[in-house]
Parts: sequence; structure tokens; C-alpha cells
Amino acid sequence: MSEKAGSGRDLWGGHFSSGPAPLMEQINASIGFDKRLYAQDIRGSIAHARMLAHSGIISEEDCDAILMGLETIQDEIEQGKFAFSTELEDIHLNIESRLTDLIGEPGRRLHTGRSRNDQVATDLRLWTRDALDRAVMLIESVMRALVERADRHAADVMPGFTHLQAAQPVTFGHHLLAYVEMLARDRSRFADARKRMNVSPLGAAALAGTSFPVDRSMTAEELGFDAPCDNSIDAVSDRDFVLDYLAGASILAVHLSRLAEELVLWSTPQFGFVRMSEDFTSGSSIMPQKRNPDAAELVRGKSGRVIGHLQAMLVTLKGLPMTYSKDMQEDKEGLFDAVDTVELCLAASREMIRSMQVFPERMEAAAGVGFTTATDLADWLVRVKGAPFREAHSVSARAVKRAEERGCGLEDLSPDDLAAIDGRLEAAVFEVLGVHRSVASRMSHGGTAPERVREQVARWRSVL
Amino acid sequence: MSEKAGSGRDLWGGHFSSGPAPLMEQINASIGFDKRLYAQDIRGSIAHARMLAHSGIISEEDCDAILMGLETIQDEIEQGKFAFSTELEDIHLNIESRLTDLIGEPGRRLHTGRSRNDQVATDLRLWTRDALDRAVMLIESVMRALVERADRHAADVMPGFTHLQAAQPVTFGHHLLAYVEMLARDRSRFADARKRMNVSPLGAAALAGTSFPVDRSMTAEELGFDAPCDNSIDAVSDRDFVLDYLAGASILAVHLSRLAEELVLWSTPQFGFVRMSEDFTSGSSIMPQKRNPDAAELVRGKSGRVIGHLQAMLVTLKGLPMTYSKDMQEDKEGLFDAVDTVELCLAASREMIRSMQVFPERMEAAAGVGFTTATDLADWLVRVKGAPFREAHSVSARAVKRAEERGCGLEDLSPDDLAAIDGRLEAAVFEVLGVHRSVASRMSHGGTAPERVREQVARWRSVL
Amino acid sequence: MSEKAGSGRDLWGGHFSSGPAPLMEQINASIGFDKRLYAQDIRGSIAHARMLAHSGIISEEDCDAILMGLETIQDEIEQGKFAFSTELEDIHLNIESRLTDLIGEPGRRLHTGRSRNDQVATDLRLWTRDALDRAVMLIESVMRALVERADRHAADVMPGFTHLQAAQPVTFGHHLLAYVEMLARDRSRFADARKRMNVSPLGAAALAGTSFPVDRSMTAEELGFDAPCDNSIDAVSDRDFVLDYLAGASILAVHLSRLAEELVLWSTPQFGFVRMSEDFTSGSSIMPQKRNPDAAELVRGKSGRVIGHLQAMLVTLKGLPMTYSKDMQEDKEGLFDAVDTVELCLAASREMIRSMQVFPERMEAAAGVGFTTATDLADWLVRVKGAPFREAHSVSARAVKRAEERGCGLEDLSPDDLAAIDGRLEAAVFEVLGVHRSVASRMSHGGTAPERVREQVARWRSVL
Amino acid sequence: MSEKAGSGRDLWGGHFSSGPAPLMEQINASIGFDKRLYAQDIRGSIAHARMLAHSGIISEEDCDAILMGLETIQDEIEQGKFAFSTELEDIHLNIESRLTDLIGEPGRRLHTGRSRNDQVATDLRLWTRDALDRAVMLIESVMRALVERADRHAADVMPGFTHLQAAQPVTFGHHLLAYVEMLARDRSRFADARKRMNVSPLGAAALAGTSFPVDRSMTAEELGFDAPCDNSIDAVSDRDFVLDYLAGASILAVHLSRLAEELVLWSTPQFGFVRMSEDFTSGSSIMPQKRNPDAAELVRGKSGRVIGHLQAMLVTLKGLPMTYSKDMQEDKEGLFDAVDTVELCLAASREMIRSMQVFPERMEAAAGVGFTTATDLADWLVRVKGAPFREAHSVSARAVKRAEERGCGLEDLSPDDLAAIDGRLEAAVFEVLGVHRSVASRMSHGGTAPERVREQVARWRSVL
Repeated sequence: MSEKAGSGRDLWGGHFSSGPAPLMEQINASIGFDKRLYAQDIRGSIAHARMLAHSGIISEEDCDAILMGLETIQDEIEQGKFAFSTELEDIHLNIESRLTDLIGEPGRRLHTGRSRNDQVATDLRLWTRDALDRAVMLIESVMRALVERADRHAADVMPGFTHLQAAQPVTFGHHLLAYVEMLARDRSRFADARKRMNVSPLGAAALAGTSFPVDRSMTAEELGFDAPCDNSIDAVSDRDFVLDYLAGASILAVHLSRLAEELVLWSTPQFGFVRMSEDFTSGSSIMPQKRNPDAAELVRGKSGRVIGHLQAMLVTLKGLPMTYSKDMQEDKEGLFDAVDTVELCLAASREMIRSMQVFPERMEAAAGVGFTTATDLADWLVRVKGAPFREAHSVSARAVKRAEERGCGLEDLSPDDLAAIDGRLEAAVFEVLGVHRSVASRMSHGGTAPERVREQVARWRSVL
Repeated sequence: MSEKAGSGRDLWGGHFSSGPAPLMEQINASIGFDKRLYAQDIRGSIAHARMLAHSGIISEEDCDAILMGLETIQDEIEQGKFAFSTELEDIHLNIESRLTDLIGEPGRRLHTGRSRNDQVATDLRLWTRDALDRAVMLIESVMRALVERADRHAADVMPGFTHLQAAQPVTFGHHLLAYVEMLARDRSRFADARKRMNVSPLGAAALAGTSFPVDRSMTAEELGFDAPCDNSIDAVSDRDFVLDYLAGASILAVHLSRLAEELVLWSTPQFGFVRMSEDFTSGSSIMPQKRNPDAAELVRGKSGRVIGHLQAMLVTLKGLPMTYSKDMQEDKEGLFDAVDTVELCLAASREMIRSMQVFPERMEAAAGVGFTTATDLADWLVRVKGAPFREAHSVSARAVKRAEERGCGLEDLSPDDLAAIDGRLEAAVFEVLGVHRSVASRMSHGGTAPERVREQVARWRSVL
Repeated sequence: MSEKAGSGRDLWGGHFSSGPAPLMEQINASIGFDKRLYAQDIRGSIAHARMLAHSGIISEEDCDAILMGLETIQDEIEQGKFAFSTELEDIHLNIESRLTDLIGEPGRRLHTGRSRNDQVATDLRLWTRDALDRAVMLIESVMRALVERADRHAADVMPGFTHLQAAQPVTFGHHLLAYVEMLARDRSRFADARKRMNVSPLGAAALAGTSFPVDRSMTAEELGFDAPCDNSIDAVSDRDFVLDYLAGASILAVHLSRLAEELVLWSTPQFGFVRMSEDFTSGSSIMPQKRNPDAAELVRGKSGRVIGHLQAMLVTLKGLPMTYSKDMQEDKEGLFDAVDTVELCLAASREMIRSMQVFPERMEAAAGVGFTTATDLADWLVRVKGAPFREAHSVSARAVKRAEERGCGLEDLSPDDLAAIDGRLEAAVFEVLGVHRSVASRMSHGGTAPERVREQVARWRSVL
Repeated sequence: MSEKAGSGRDLWGGHFSSGPAPLMEQINASIGFDKRLYAQDIRGSIAHARMLAHSGIISEEDCDAILMGLETIQDEIEQGKFAFSTELEDIHLNIESRLTDLIGEPGRRLHTGRSRNDQVATDLRLWTRDALDRAVMLIESVMRALVERADRHAADVMPGFTHLQAAQPVTFGHHLLAYVEMLARDRSRFADARKRMNVSPLGAAALAGTSFPVDRSMTAEELGFDAPCDNSIDAVSDRDFVLDYLAGASILAVHLSRLAEELVLWSTPQFGFVRMSEDFTSGSSIMPQKRNPDAAELVRGKSGRVIGHLQAMLVTLKGLPMTYSKDMQEDKEGLFDAVDTVELCLAASREMIRSMQVFPERMEAAAGVGFTTATDLADWLVRVKGAPFREAHSVSARAVKRAEERGCGLEDLSPDDLAAIDGRLEAAVFEVLGVHRSVASRMSHGGTAPERVREQVARWRSVL
């Protein structure tokens, strides 16, 4: 059994009765998850060591020894040869302890002018910054996949739904570009978060700053930060960057859940607009024609998980007095899982979009059902005949009623029928009653006309 | 690096560009976490096989072979010799596939009259039922620890706080018993959940029931269920028992967070009411006198995690149409983590209560600060002198004002001072102004008088 | 403008610059919402006054005056003649102050042996108990509506969906009864909550109990409580009953959201299974044929609101030290809104179920699409021919493949076709391939066979 | 009784049994809350009418009539003379209907080229934009209050806490500036949200755009938007701006909850660091010396409410297919309440900071308790004597141990004592052992030295 699987029983049969020490180890040690920060921890230590030497706080020789030792440790970890110790609690002590094993006294000088509080804040910030960058790149890759799809379907007509009832015809390309807009906001949200968080806690020490003549700007620059944090207390207690990632991820997850819901709907025989690729469906061994849209369902369902992590972090931080409290150790696992989930869902969404098969004829057929061009008729009356909008509206409603009685579409009414409804309804009105004419006429900025869709596709291509 | 730690990079550098198949495997496979259900899966299969044989659906020989095979598999898993396969997706297929390897054709007969949908619903229900039972036992163990502490401190006086300001003296034992009441409600919440969920989905098959003459009551009984579920569609789509656990766990976690907050407060030099055991604190290597109440902080902080898992599951289930959707695979990881967290927090709370050092003299000193017996004075006026309550209230307020001017306690005012405030304030009133007299007088049912506390201790001892 | 609408601007243009006093009034006063507790407050005061007289703490004359005064106040409030005052902060002081205006000194004796802390705890508990009772009754009314519908459609066939793909035929009655099961659990959750919370805080006073010889059992009984709370500190700080309502309401809201989602889906022209009553849809003035399922959408959407209130309360209580803190004033508005929302959603769901028009022929047609009886074929092979399940499974898959190639249903394959697939597939197999035969065969307990559905209908009728 | 208070009973006794129509009205009508958008609705209609005239879609005369009519309506609403009608469902229809009453046919032309979908999206966006601007201004006002306080206390020493245990001395000014940093991030979060949302949905019409030659850039500019939305489907279905407000508000509320927690703690007699102004405390009528920090508690508790509204909106939007669904009507009430709450909490926090009384001598006394300068001793050894940090650490630990045995502070140890611990500990070390010397030495960028604090105060003053 996996370590995790056994833990419940260990808790119960084991130290739950056998005493407090292992219990404390279990609740307290973070090495099980914070080892994921190893590369950031080493990177931060390298920058710190160089600054200490540059500032004359340690010697160049000590610095060289430290850098060599840290390089060795990074190799050991990446080759799976590093022996992580739970007694040493966390990644920082594991690495520092190994460093002293490897290089002796210089290792004991590395921690000068810093503390675990600014160290962990720096490590997690570096890790989250990478995650923000990855999120932006992945979002852009989904946007590109949507834009390519939109181009292919710029003129394909589908029903535009409100209340999941067909309302007006739109183009499928236009519909897909709506998601590009959402994702563009997601991207800007992560980009804003990155700007806001890109300051360096290193050198804030335990909480009060330090009496060593450290050069915080130097470490900030070496680590790619824009500047050092301006308040040492805030530097060690701030976890806003975790909240910013989780809030951005939650909104993104909601967007992806909406797309996933549509993919699930469109995949039903009832809609039949798309067929998801075999790669992202599961068949049933007994019903081989069945294609369950598993990946889309999982993308939809995993929104819960991401939103849950946001809620968890808000609850944990609520009401915490300054500065560092151990509660804040809860900042990592939820974040790590949210990042993994978001990246997986973005990649899966992108590939589903790329690989799905679209049935434009099914979409077009559905677009014409339900008198979806009734608005076009009313608009024609206003535009061509100068009728007040609300009056035109009511004429159109009478036309729909007649078509319903006749059991036909608006475009199938006879000219006499139309004339009987309102004298202004001449034959010319038929021009606006087909779904293709309808979408072509929506030429307002941001409208669904194929021409407008292609303009937007071109714009996005140049942006992305 | 751990598998988890590397996964982000793999996603990005690896299959994110290399194609959909590994992506689907990563988002879809559940064996990484649902192997934790192995014992429940085997137990369910044993019951199912016996029923199939008993109902004449399979032969006794086949049944024997199946039982022997399942026993072998359980051993293999528990001895770490089982080769879990991600291609086989989940624990059910891993076990069934291995069974057929081991025993051949009879293995292919096991799945008669059931489906993965009722199988996983049964497994998770059995697992959750065990978790509910463990929660009840652990809660009781915390209650016992509190009751023992309450007995020791039945007559020790502390300030009863409102708004974190001392309001009236109470006994520390009484204060601790308030948590016993909360935990008793938590216990009843888990017990109710157990009753509500203890019905068997097995035999609901995919969703519609089955045409085999299965005996669902027999498997229900063998698995310790009260009855089979009465509707097969509900049987496979119901995850209320997960929500019930998570809701109960969230309320429990809030209770434990309140206790933890008090332990953190009481451990400050400013309060100084308790000293947490070294086992549950971390020192600072440089400030050896320092005792950081890490375990209490973690119990407080982990409430976020549990509440987050509840929220995640509610979001995931919101708006899902019947019956099984793949979104529901998200039901496990959050539950597992919530169960582990709750058990850890309960055990840690119990041990902290048992091992902490209490300073009754610090509590008593704090109890007398702030005219906390002003209510006693007013009540005395009503009780002994027949004053209307609101009038007595106002006399008492004047006494406090006088004491404040004198810079002394109420009990330090002279008889003349009192008489000057109100003629009815005779010397006899002094009897109610000490904190011990105050608590002793609160003899109403459920009141803080040591006698009442000891009654409650006795009651709890007999109940637990 | 309403008071609420204007408040933002007042804050900004008004006291935000004009000083702290109105700001404090605005953040602190609760009379704007807690007046909703007026009937409970009066009821509690009546019980308290009678007990005080019975215990000899006040005179019978005072008691009579108090009861008469309270009756007058109740009339004034219910006739809209009561002048609520924000200066008097809350409903308790508003009523007590008016009482003293009306009856003089006896009014000043009413508060003997109690405090606002136990008073508000009692009021809110009474109010919530009523809400729990109403929830149970309303849930039962929805169950009844579903049971009646299920009876009418006990033999109507529809597709049973998994992953929103047709999997096996089920009866519509069976599908509806799945919701009855969910609601039965909701009902039991509210009933459990009622039992758990039905103890009386009255007499716990500020937090420590009282020195007056109050008879807490008498007031408990008069107010319909099972007993007095056993710990006065817990009595005033416990808000578990609010959490229990909100947790039960959140799970219920998720259930209703699932039903609502199905109603929205079924109402699309693509599904066409039902047509919602005009009473619960909005038309479009221009597309008169359009029926937007507004009420169903609102029921689905309002799940967010209820879940949000649960989360709000958990966050508010997290980490609060004992006993009463002002944060707890936040216990009311979210609860009130959740109760209103739940009641509205239950009533709307019930009426939608009652009034919707069902199209069984559309359902049946959909039920047969997609080889949904492939499982029946496999089961027949196992049952009649003794094939191992996994082998039968694979034969059935081949039959589906053949039918797919032929472009026909399983039941349209020729006997020769079947024989070519597997020699055991005799003509008798056709008996299980129709959707009506399929559902009729699912006779296992809780299965979808019309006979089983009618049994369950009968059971529910006798229970409800 | 208020309308709200009675609604539960009405539901039950009234239309719950009396039929669906009033039920639908109750669940469906939004006029009860969306009338708060009246000014935005009118502003949007004015811009739309002007554009219609400018584009030749309506005549200038009609436009003039419309503008006059809208002005009249705004006056009627602001003077409380407007008769809101629930039958007319929402603010848009209420205003349009009144307009037609007032001016006849031109009123029926106003809706040309727009729809309720883009109209409500525009109104809510305008409203939220104002709320974002107010939030920024209010946040800045709290920052200013903190900066002024920080300046006054730039050199006052207090304990810097970790784990709520004194760790190192800091200046109170420095501590307060940590909150200024948090608020600066909150401000930037709202400012980012404003930039992201400042595009105009007007002209997107129902969802597809319009065939009228509308000039969306003109209305966008007139309403202060940077540009029109580029996709009409996204324009009507996007509610990210609501989520952005709520996410920013939730993080802000957590920050304020942390400050409020500290105010509550510092107000206890045990800490005694501050005394909240009478304006923001409630006394007890019986314990006049008592100052309950009610406003701080409410600010802390109301974080739950804001976070709950964020969660509610995420749940509501999860899994919604495009484009407008009625679920989205739930976007307003939670937002309105969150905005009111945030504004109230910011104003209350600002005034509490301004009006509280600070006791620097209590802070300083607490700062010296607990060997808080042990780090200074270790740093001195490294800086002056060249000891490796970990070695210096261990010497300092021995010094603390000796002081603890002697029952004195580090600065009270004799030179002989120090020399006995480690030969390098000369008398010069005493210079770093006082709390004032300690804070003065933390001169690193962002450190707690008074000089650094004053620099930051100056920087903030120039920024704000």
C-alpha cells in the first residue's frame, strides 16, 4: 500500500495510542510536500551566498564552497539519491544539513542575515512565479487552439442559446471566440498577479530585518525580482500571491467548466453538434458506439477542487495575527494541487478542442428551429419601414404565431400570410429570414457576422 | 523527486506537446488514489460472489475459486507485492484482472449482476462507514481527555470571557466541559450520518437494476448494511454520505479551531494560563525558553483544508444530471484528505489537552481583574433586597464607578462607600464579591458552580 | 429609493467623513434584521416571566402585567404600529423598553436571571426550529408531487443516462423516485438537526448560569424544548444549529440543482422530454413559442447562494475564542436568506413537477437510440446460455458492431446475423432487445421494472 | 413587520398553497434589488439614445424627448415618487414603461439595436466600476490613517510576534506599515480589475450583435469605457467583473480580519497595548469599565460574509452553458451586500485606527520579556567576532539558558557570566542587548529601525 493509504490505520493502531512524539512529527513535518521547492531553495541560497560574499559578510572561498555544495545537492536530488529526513522537518533544513555534511564550516555561515521565515517566503514566491508563467503560456495555447477552430467555422451557423433555448443564429466561430475573450481575461489576471508579487522577501530575516549590511537589491535582482519588499514584517507574513493564484485559477476553472458543459451537451445524440476524439472519451466495452466525454466531465468537475483550495486558504488566513503563525504551513499543498489541476485541465481542454469532430450541418439544422429569425423580421420593419421597435416587435410576434399555426418556419409563410399580418411586410422581408442572412447582417462591432469573426481571428493571431 | 513533484514539469515538457494519450491517462486514471479502497473492494466482491452462488447464478466451485483468489490478492496488496497498473485505470479493474490471471474463467463470472457503478458506490460507502466509526471513537477519546481535565479543575476559577474581555468568573472545568458539549454534537452528527448512509447499493448494477435473480438483502446483510437501497438510480448516483462526512468534519474542525485558538492565547506570556507540552511545541534553537504552540496552530489552520474539501464537493455535484457522471470521480481525494486531517487533529487535540500544564493561580488572578463580580452585586440586590433588576443593575454600575475611582476592586470598597452608593448595600453583600463565592453561587442547572461541574463530570463519565 | 439602495452613497457622502458615531450605529445595530425574531422573543419572555413567578422570584401580579404588556407589543408589531428604534440596537431591547413604557416597574423585573446572551440564543433557536419544521413539511410536499408523477409514469420508458449518454432504458417513474430518495435523506437531515438542537439555553444567563433559583426545566418545557442545555458557556456560544440548517440546506440545494438541470435539459427542443408550465417560464415577447425555464434556472442558480451562506458562517466561527463574541451577530442574515431561498426553491420545484407536461413518446424514442439493450443481450447469454459474464460482454459488443454497420438497431438484426456472431444467439434473444422488455426484466429490488416502481410508489404513499 | 420578515409565512400560508403565479413572481422578479441600478440604467439609455440619433437610427426630436423623459424619471426615483412595479419585473422595464407613459412613441424606439441582455450587462458594469473606484479611495484613506499612526510610533518598541510568542523587538510604526503594504496590494487588485472590466457591452444586443448601424465606440466613450467588447456573446454572458470584485474583496476582508484580530487581542487587559475609542466599543451597562471591541469583532466576523458571496457566485456560474441563463440574475444581491460590507469595514477600520489610544510603555515592557534580543547577541558574535552563524546561534542559546537560571534578562547577566559562556562575549556585547538598540540596528532595507520606518512613512506620504 502507498504511504498515504496506510496512514489512517497507522494513526489509529499506531501512535494514536503510542504517544505524542510521532503524532507531532506527523502533523508538523512538511518535508513530504515542501521538497517540491528544492530547486527554488537552492536558487535562493546561491543568490544569498553570492550577496554575502559581495558584501564582505562571508569570504569568497566560503561562497565558492557553498555554491559547489549546493550544486552537488541539486544533482543528488534530481538523480533520486538524496536521503530526505522527516526529523529535519522541511526542505530548508534538509538542504542546509546536507550542505554542512558536504563542506563543513562554510555551510554554517550560509544562514547569516536570513531566517527560515524569509527563506520559505522566497522559495514559495519563486515557485508560484513559475506557476504563473506556465499558466499564462498554457492559457495562450488554449486560446490559439480556439482561434484556429474559430477560423475553420467562421461561417458555420449554430443556434445562439439563451436559457438553453435557441434564440438567434450565430456562427460557431463567434461562439468559440467568446471563450478566447474569457481566457484573455484569465491571462491578464495571472499577469497582474505576477507583477504584484514580484518583490523579494529575502533579507527580511525572521521578521524585523537584520543588522548585517546585506544588499537586498542584489539578491532581488539575481532572483529576477523587481525590487526587495519594503516591509520586513509583511515580507514574511504575506501570502497574497497564493491567494491571487487561487482566485485566478478559480475563475479560470469556472470558465473551463462552462466550455466543458457545452462539450458534454453537444456530444449527446440529442444535440449531436460534436463528437469528442476517442483520445478523450471512454467507450463502454459493451456499447462500443458509446463515447463518454470523460475528459470534459473531469474538467467540469475539477472546478470544485480548485475553488475548494481557494476557500481553504481564505479560511486558514482569516483572523491570523502577525507575523508568522504555523497555520501558514497550510499554504503549500492546496496551491500545489491547484496548479497541477489547472495545468492538466488547460492541456486537456486544448487537446479536446483540437481533436473534436464538428458537425456543422447538425448545428445549422438546429439553428433554424424555433423561429430564431423573428428578431430579424422585427429589425427589418424598424430599419426599412421606420416602425418603432416595440411595435415591430409585436408584428413579428404575430408572424411567429401564424407560422406556428401553419406548422412551418417564418421563411415558409406565404407573402399573403405576411401581408395579412401587417401591410408593411413585403416580399423583401424574406431576405432576412434565413439563418445565413441573419448572421451575415450582424455586422456591428463584435457581432456574429462571418466577416467580423474573421477580423477577430486575424486580431487574435497577431496578438498571440 | 517524488512523482508528484515532477508532474508539473512532465505535463509541460512532456505530453503537453507529445499527444493526447498520456494526458487522458493522467486526468482519467484513479488508481493512484482509489487503491486505498482495496479492502472494501475485496470485501464487496466476496459478498457478491457468495450471493451469486447462493442464488444459483454461479456454481459453488466458481465461488470457492473466487474467494481463494481474492484472499491471495489481499495478501499480495498488503505485502506490497501487487503490481498496480495505470492502464487498468482503477482498483476494481486491477483486482478483477488479477483475479482472472489467478483463477481463469470463474474470475470472468464475478461481475455478473453488478457493474462498476454499484461496485464503486459500495466500496466508498464501506470505506466512509469505517471513517465515521473511527471519527466517533476519536471524538469520544477527546471528550474523555476533556472530562478528566475538567474534573481536576472543577473548582479552579478563571475569567469567563465575552468579546475576549473578562465578564464573570467561571471554573476552568466548566469551560472545558463546554467543548465536551460541542464534541457530543459532533459525535451525534457522525452517528446520524452513519445511520442515514447504511444501505447497500450493491445490485443496482449500472443504474437500472438487473435481470439476474440477485438477493440484494443477502449482500446487504453480509456487508453490515441495514438494507439494500430502494432505488437503483439513486444508489449509483448518491454521494450524500461523502457530503455528510465533510459537513460533520467541517463543523468539528471549527470547534477544534476554537479550542486551538484558546490554547494559543492561553500560552502567551500575556495570558500565561497554560504551558503546552514540549511534545506539541517547537522551540527556537536560539531562544530555548520559547515554546511555539505549533500543533495548536496547525489544528486551527487545518480547519481551512476540511472546509475547502466540503466546498469542493458541493461545487462538483452542483447541477450534475443523473445518473453517474465522471465528475463524480472527484469524490475521493478530498474525502480521504479530510478524513486523515480530522483524525490527526482529533488525536493532536486530545494529547495537547492531556499533556498541557495549567496554571490555576494565573487564571484566578485574571478572574478578579475588571470588576467581574458586578453582576453578583446586582443579583444580590434583587435577591435579597427585592430591587427590580434594571434598578439593581444601575446601583451596581455606580459601585463599579466608585471602585474604579478608588483604584480598587469591588470587594475592597469600604462599607461606608457602599452605603453611600445605595442604602441597601449592607456588609452582607461582601459575601458575593469574591470570585470563589461568585462561581459557587451559580447553582442553576448547567451553571459554573464546582458542584454542578462535578455533576456533569460524573454524567459524562457514565455516558462515555 | 429603498434604504438599502441608498446606503452605499450615504456611507460615502455621509458619515464616512462626518464621524464615527453613525458608522458604529450602522455596523453595530441589528434591529434591521433581528426584528424578524419578535415572536420568538415574546414567546421566550412569556415563558421566562411565568417561571420567575412560579419560582417566587417575581410576584404573580408582576407576571400578569408582563404577560399583558407582551401581548400588546405583539399586536402592535403585527399591526405595523410598533416604532422600532435603531438606538435600542436590537429586538430584545426594543421590546423590553416598550414593555417598561407600557407597564412600568414590573417591566424592569423581567430580565432577572437571564441575559441578552441566553435570550438571543433562545430566540434564534426557536426561530430555526420552526424553519426546520417548515423545511421538513415542504420537502414532503415535493416528495408527494414526485411520487404522484412517478405513479403516472411508472411504465413510461426513457433513456437512463450516464455521462449524459443513453446507457440503458429506465422508466420515468423510477427516475423521479431517485429524487424522492434524495429528498428523504434531506428530510432526515433536518429532522436529525431538530433533535440535536432542541435544548433550551434560557437561564444560562450571560455565560456562567445564575444565582437565582430559576427552574430551567420549566421554561424548557414551556418552549417545547426536550431539556435545558447542560453547560451554560456552551449554551450561549453554540451556533451549531445554524450550521446544521445551512449544511442540510446546502445539500438539499445541490439536489434541487440537479433536478433543475434536468428540467432545463429536458425542455430543450433537442431533448423535448417535457414542456414546463407557462407559470414557470418566461416567454419572449418576440418569440412567443419560446419557453425559457426561468424558475428551474433560478432554482439551479440559487444553490450558490445557500452554499455561500454555509461557507460564510463557517468562516465567521472559525477560530473564535469562547464565549460570546460580536462576530456571532453575523449568524442571522445569512440564515434568514438561506431559509427564504430554500423554501422558495422547494415550493417552486414542487409546482414545476406538478404542472409540467411530459412527452413519453419523445422519451421512449430516445430510449431506443444507441443500442441501449446491449447489456440485456449479454445478460441473456449469461442467464440462458451460461456464458461467463466477460465473454457474454464481448459477444454483445460484436452484435452492436454489426448493427452499427447495418445502420439498424440490435432488435433489427436478422437471426442469421446473430447466429453468425455467436452460435448461442437464438431467436429467443429478441425477447430482451426491446426497451419495454428491458425495463420489465429489471426486477431486482430497487430496479426499474414498472412493477418495482409501483411498489415503491405504494410504499412512499403509505409513508408520506 | 418588514416585507422580508413576513415572507416566510406568506410563502407557507399564502401562495405555497394558492398557486404558482405569485410563486413565480417571487422567485423571478428582480425589481426588489435591481432598482439600485436605476442611475446606471438611465445613464446607459441616454448614451444609447444619443448614439441612435447620431447614427440616424432615430430622429433628433425623438432623442430629445427620450432624454427629457429619462431626466424626469431620475428625478421621480430620487424624490421617492416613482411607483416601482413587480409585474414589470426589473428596473429596465420599469423605466422603459414609465418612459413610454411620459413621452409616447419615441419611448418605443429607445430599445432599437439593444436588448435587455446587453443593457443589464452595461448597467451592472457601470455600477461595479463605481464600486471599484470607491474601494480604491476608501483603501487609500485607511492607508493614510495607518501611515499617520506609524509616523507617531516610528520609534515605539513592541514585541514582534511569531506564533503569538514574542520573537524580536520591532517598532509599532513598522508593524502598522505592514498593513499599509497589504492594503496597497488590495488597491492594486481593484485597480487591475477596473482596467480589465472597462469595456462596453452596449450594442451586443441579445447575444449576436445587431443589424442596425450602431456606433458602439460612441456609446463606449460616452459611458467612460475604454472600448466596446469585441465579442457580443462574451459581452452578455461575462460576469468576471463581479468575480473580480468579490475576489479582491475577499482578500481585503482577510487582511482587515487580521488587523481586527490584533485590535481585539491588544485591547485585552492581558495585552493592554491599546484602548479602542468609546465610539467603536460597547460598554456593559453593569460593568462600565468594560470596553468590548464590537466594531473590530464585526470587521473580523464580516470576512465570512464577503467570502461567502464570492463562493456563491463561483458556484452559480460553474457549469453554465452560454450565453445568458437566468441563473445569472443571482449576480446582484451578493455583490451589493459585499460592496456595502467592504465599504463599512474599511471606514470602520480607518476610524478605529485614528481614534484608538496606544500605550507605548505597555508595548515596550512586553517587548523585553522573553530574551527577544538573543538573535542580536548571536548576530554580534558573527559580525564582530567572525563566528559562523550556526555556532554563534548555539552560544546565544547558552546565554539565554544562563539568564533563565538567574531569573534575569540577557542584559542583566554579568560580564563574568558572559565570559564563562564564551570567551568572545566581551562587555561590548551589551550594546546590542536592549530593545531600543536592537530595533535601531535593523537597518536593512525594509527593516524595523526607526530611521527606516520614517523613510517608508515619507515614501507613502508622497505616494498617497
